[in-house]
Amino acid sequence: MNTVRKIVVVITARPSYSRVKTVLAAIQKHPGLQLQLVVAASALLDRYGSAVNYIEKDGFTIAAKVFNVLEGENLTAAAKTTGIGILELSTVFDNLKPDIVVTVADRFETMATAIAASYMNIPLAHIQGGEVTGNIDEKVRHAITKLSDYHFVASENAKERVIKLGEDPAMVFNTGCPSIDLASAITESKTLAFDPYEKYGGVGAKPDLSQGYLVVMQHPVTTEYRDSRKHIEVTLEVIYKLNKPTLWFWPNVDAGADGTSTGIRAFREQHQLPNVHFFKNMEGKDFLQLLKHSDCLIGNSSVGIRECAFLGVPVINIGSRQNRRDRGGNSVDVDYSKEQIEAAIVTSIQKGKTISSSIYGNGKAGLQIAELLAELPLQFHKTIMY
Amino acid sequence: MNTVRKIVVVITARPSYSRVKTVLAAIQKHPGLQLQLVVAASALLDRYGSAVNYIEKDGFTIAAKVFNVLEGENLTAAAKTTGIGILELSTVFDNLKPDIVVTVADRFETMATAIAASYMNIPLAHIQGGEVTGNIDEKVRHAITKLSDYHFVASENAKERVIKLGEDPAMVFNTGCPSIDLASAITESKTLAFDPYEKYGGVGAKPDLSQGYLVVMQHPVTTEYRDSRKHIEVTLEVIYKLNKPTLWFWPNVDAGADGTSTGIRAFREQHQLPNVHFFKNMEGKDFLQLLKHSDCLIGNSSVGIRECAFLGVPVINIGSRQNRRDRGGNSVDVDYSKEQIEAAIVTSIQKGKTISSSIYGNGKAGLQIAELLAELPLQFHKTIMY
Amino acid sequence: MNTVRKIVVVITARPSYSRVKTVLAAIQKHPGLQLQLVVAASALLDRYGSAVNYIEKDGFTIAAKVFNVLEGENLTAAAKTTGIGILELSTVFDNLKPDIVVTVADRFETMATAIAASYMNIPLAHIQGGEVTGNIDEKVRHAITKLSDYHFVASENAKERVIKLGEDPAMVFNTGCPSIDLASAITESKTLAFDPYEKYGGVGAKPDLSQGYLVVMQHPVTTEYRDSRKHIEVTLEVIYKLNKPTLWFWPNVDAGADGTSTGIRAFREQHQLPNVHFFKNMEGKDFLQLLKHSDCLIGNSSVGIRECAFLGVPVINIGSRQNRRDRGGNSVDVDYSKEQIEAAIVTSIQKGKTISSSIYGNGKAGLQIAELLAELPLQFHKTIMY
Amino acid sequence: MNTVRKIVVVITARPSYSRVKTVLAAIQKHPGLQLQLVVAASALLDRYGSAVNYIEKDGFTIAAKVFNVLEGENLTAAAKTTGIGILELSTVFDNLKPDIVVTVADRFETMATAIAASYMNIPLAHIQGGEVTGNIDEKVRHAITKLSDYHFVASENAKERVIKLGEDPAMVFNTGCPSIDLASAITESKTLAFDPYEKYGGVGAKPDLSQGYLVVMQHPVTTEYRDSRKHIEVTLEVIYKLNKPTLWFWPNVDAGADGTSTGIRAFREQHQLPNVHFFKNMEGKDFLQLLKHSDCLIGNSSVGIRECAFLGVPVINIGSRQNRRDRGGNSVDVDYSKEQIEAAIVTSIQKGKTISSSIYGNGKAGLQIAELLAELPLQFHKTIMY
Repeated sequence: MNTVRKIVVVITARPSYSRVKTVLAAIQKHPGLQLQLVVAASALLDRYGSAVNYIEKDGFTIAAKVFNVLEGENLTAAAKTTGIGILELSTVFDNLKPDIVVTVADRFETMATAIAASYMNIPLAHIQGGEVTGNIDEKVRHAITKLSDYHFVASENAKERVIKLGEDPAMVFNTGCPSIDLASAITESKTLAFDPYEKYGGVGAKPDLSQGYLVVMQHPVTTEYRDSRKHIEVTLEVIYKLNKPTLWFWPNVDAGADGTSTGIRAFREQHQLPNVHFFKNMEGKDFLQLLKHSDCLIGNSSVGIRECAFLGVPVINIGSRQNRRDRGGNSVDVDYSKEQIEAAIVTSIQKGKTISSSIYGNGKAGLQIAELLAELPLQFHKTIMY
Repeated sequence: MNTVRKIVVVITARPSYSRVKTVLAAIQKHPGLQLQLVVAASALLDRYGSAVNYIEKDGFTIAAKVFNVLEGENLTAAAKTTGIGILELSTVFDNLKPDIVVTVADRFETMATAIAASYMNIPLAHIQGGEVTGNIDEKVRHAITKLSDYHFVASENAKERVIKLGEDPAMVFNTGCPSIDLASAITESKTLAFDPYEKYGGVGAKPDLSQGYLVVMQHPVTTEYRDSRKHIEVTLEVIYKLNKPTLWFWPNVDAGADGTSTGIRAFREQHQLPNVHFFKNMEGKDFLQLLKHSDCLIGNSSVGIRECAFLGVPVINIGSRQNRRDRGGNSVDVDYSKEQIEAAIVTSIQKGKTISSSIYGNGKAGLQIAELLAELPLQFHKTIMY
Repeated sequence: MNTVRKIVVVITARPSYSRVKTVLAAIQKHPGLQLQLVVAASALLDRYGSAVNYIEKDGFTIAAKVFNVLEGENLTAAAKTTGIGILELSTVFDNLKPDIVVTVADRFETMATAIAASYMNIPLAHIQGGEVTGNIDEKVRHAITKLSDYHFVASENAKERVIKLGEDPAMVFNTGCPSIDLASAITESKTLAFDPYEKYGGVGAKPDLSQGYLVVMQHPVTTEYRDSRKHIEVTLEVIYKLNKPTLWFWPNVDAGADGTSTGIRAFREQHQLPNVHFFKNMEGKDFLQLLKHSDCLIGNSSVGIRECAFLGVPVINIGSRQNRRDRGGNSVDVDYSKEQIEAAIVTSIQKGKTISSSIYGNGKAGLQIAELLAELPLQFHKTIMY
Repeated sequence: MNTVRKIVVVITARPSYSRVKTVLAAIQKHPGLQLQLVVAASALLDRYGSAVNYIEKDGFTIAAKVFNVLEGENLTAAAKTTGIGILELSTVFDNLKPDIVVTVADRFETMATAIAASYMNIPLAHIQGGEVTGNIDEKVRHAITKLSDYHFVASENAKERVIKLGEDPAMVFNTGCPSIDLASAITESKTLAFDPYEKYGGVGAKPDLSQGYLVVMQHPVTTEYRDSRKHIEVTLEVIYKLNKPTLWFWPNVDAGADGTSTGIRAFREQHQLPNVHFFKNMEGKDFLQLLKHSDCLIGNSSVGIRECAFLGVPVINIGSRQNRRDRGGNSVDVDYSKEQIEAAIVTSIQKGKTISSSIYGNGKAGLQIAELLAELPLQFHKTIMY
């Protein structure tokens, strides 16, 4: 068929946008594809970093916006946000009439995209299935695999796992993770090419970054959301004690987001943190450069496991959030323990940079995914392979 | 723990109720369990047989009713019904605070139960996972498996498949299908123990049933819903031509329900059907007895594959709806073809009853499931087994 | 301002479409206006006459469709349909960015249009406020008046009433009812210009219409919805007894719609009606011609009070649904009483046609409304006048 | 009838709770009434002061909680919050089966209560109709009057206005405002009976309150929400300049809440405010005592117009939010102007306390409303009086 295919990609959060930015660009450039970008959920909200602003600044046209985040400090709100997402996205898909819908990763609200598309008999592509983390994300991720028709996975282990889940091997592609596309474009330099305080504002101290610095990014873990405040306090205590130049990123939205955020706010009211600056968000390219120049990343972000593996940045990975994800040799896993976290930071700084790993791809994921979206047979009917 | 566990079971359709009635009874009788019955979706609606009336007549107390069926002759309505279901069920679960939620089979709207429960960290049990049919039901069914913590499957093949899907074998139980519990209670008798016309009303002719009769039950197939009217017309033509005593059951709700229903209504306006009576619904026990006395069942209901296998009733299984479900030796698979359907009916009548098969269980499923619900460790945290 | 104004009109039901068709046409033709037609609720559904098909056939482009009818034989479904309508319409308005939103009359779900528009600070115009009927419609109608910025009313009494409600007299316009625009285009002729059986199908007998005929159109009344079956049976008994050529129109959607429809279906199964034909729906123009040639209209439709007053067709108005609406001299009010209804029909046939009344307008409403929409100051901020 | 009436009261925000607390207490004590308290919307959320905690601490039992606040810095979210509210509240009412539903005042989301109740034919009582403010609240307030069956208004002017709106005078009662019940219980004392910093936490400086202090409470104004940040900055500048002991209360949720909150946060990051303390919320009784001891209240809260009139506390009322509400002689109206605000504060401090006014009641509103709820005829059917 020679006609141009309409590809809906639904972006529901700032980190998802960073991750698939090169996919969006590749779709937009592909002569056989038309990008229909839908921005939803926390990607539209100021308190989670307004990804929508970066998306527009990056020159992408937004086909539809979907406000569906229900407020509330509990898991019920996560369920309801997903329900509202289905209601709204089905109307959006009805109007846009896409040939394929693309959903990204495993955040709870991506299930809304998967259900609306699959129930409406629209072929569904899933980026980043087959990974293992051991929390609610995993239920969501594998359930989305079972609703999806095409699988663009990020590693060989992930590919094997998706096939074991009964998917047709002909529809499972190890494209690598598109986030590595961005990381592969980051070049070494003596100093940061931008002043993060000036460019991104934020609050707190403005420590001198020229002699190295720590980066912290710690999200609440859904199945343990009552503990999220306790967990963040452990990390805060360590950073407070070490008193090294530190750049701290606020967590993105989750059922327990407020536990984490409240913990940080309360700690700041009670303690002086003369070496810590807090950012709400940062453009992907700048963030990667910041990581590349840092001593290490602390927290539980998948950036540590993925991009930092490619960049060779040491990572102190705290708690269960990245459980069982493939590791590239740059990370140390620690518990919510002040002693463990502190020791791991000290050791990492001593050892310095690690070797770059291509376990999550080689920087061509965006192009490969666009090519596949243009060529794969359109189908929404499948059966388990065993 | 000695406390009584609160078990929410969500019933969303008449056939699901029939299927798990013995589970509900067993939960209700179990001293360690408290049944919290939630009736939702088409189970509440008159045009789909008002399962709710039978539920109340059978003596079950309803803890909450959830109206969530969105009208519309399209797939969008199926998506939206699911979205509204999540919104409503999450409030219901918030109030009932169950220890375990049970969801049944694979109808599209059962996904709402699975998402609300799993997102709220409530242990989720799934009855009848692991089966294969090759349509949208399959996407739903396997996705629900990936969201569920306990699996009560109906056959050995289903058990193997759920384990292959990466579930912990210790949480997968072949209890058999609870629908067989009812079938196992049906005893042979010379004639029907009740007069179906008098007891269930319905419309159309009232053919004499004493010399044998056909039963028809054909549902629309979601992935082919534009064709549902064409498909039903094929069956109507055959029944019209054969002109044998026939009892026809209206289809239950699905995206294409109106295609099927409209087809039947239009055919009735244009043709005399002097040997066909139409029922909206029937209590499970009576329906099974009706089947037991019939010459054969025609259509695409899972009753043909399951209960009829146990009962030894010949089945003409039309189209793809039951594709790849385990067969017990009583069924013939045919296409949407007048010739094939007619020939299969004639042959079936000549051959008569088949041998009873226990491929879908031996009649103890309800008791076994209740026992497991009372004893299994309460958990909502899992990881894929490979 | 010279720019073209974008005017959203939301159509939620077949009768509303018939009523404002000339407004839509006038907006479409006006050089200063761009029509953004939104079709929602029962206007999209087959079982309520698929107004959407007529709309498309009449050449109007649909900017968005909104499926929001929740199934259920109860008032809860009416509330929920309205809630879903707000969710969906707010997204639609967000995308279309209209300068003015127009809502029509007083059906329960029109409240969704009014709330979405007024909450989003979009100027809201209301067609047909200020009338009085004495049921839930009245709560809805006057509440919408209080949310609206412009009022296009159908009679002098209605105008006075809207002003008494505290609205700015400068924003209240007696344009007449747009339904009269269509009626004013119906010309006298010896016989019907079309064969209704052939053109509109339907079911039942096909009585000879050449010697006069009755038309029946009776809707359920919301505040009495438990009684709707009983009410319709009274009318059915009278029509059955009189046994005159009768054309019967199915009711449109309402909380009790199924009571009425079920009543009709059950009656048809139990009785022969050799002189009655049933239609689902009819284009406005044809329907008016049908009325013009009829002996009388029986039921509780506003068509009897409005268009029939202009056409001079006698009307037997049953029950409370049109309570206190201005009458034009062509109608007789009766109770749900076989005796009263029968007597009124007999008398009406004897007396014949009545004098045309312009109490509801002179046939220029559509043009006037379009002109006002193009010229009125855009405003959404108001205060009560006392 | 002698049976106990079930009275649902829906509380959607902290200020509404404070306002009707004496009504809830009176219902709870009345032998003929059973209170079914529903807590919804921002009343459940931490960032808007968790009214729910105070409600529970005050000993009220909560019959149902409804999470329905959709996040988003725009008016669309207000519309959607209302839509979700209808969906959820209709289920709640279905389960609780109240005899009367009570809705309070005029916040946008109270419309959800009014629609769910009136559409479900449940008699609806409205507290505080008939007032005039000139913004979106007014559309909401008067529309709710048109949906309500009983009106408990707060002043003679309000009573007259509700009657002019076409309501039956027999159903309109000037009970006074229940918020005055609390104010009437506040007794004069030399010093505050509690330490606000210790009891309510909050952030910022802890100025000495013994020589007088200012109280600030300024909410965003819905129809001007883009301006809310600019407006709050004006007030912040004045307070910064005056540098007097000041207690500042965060605004409650509204479409522009984040504009106001963001403005305050940004100002605090950029300026030292050595004499300003910020509170999230305070129990009604303590808040009233705090006001009673203050020099004056600054902002746009209705507390200034209402309770402060009774208490004789001077009020600097900024902007349009309280436009046209009845005044008791204690308030000065000013624009969003630094000069005007500053001058008014200085003058107020010089003049001191004003004379107590009973324009909004004499302190018996709660008891009167409970008595009426127990005795009024149950009815949901009404018609406009002209």
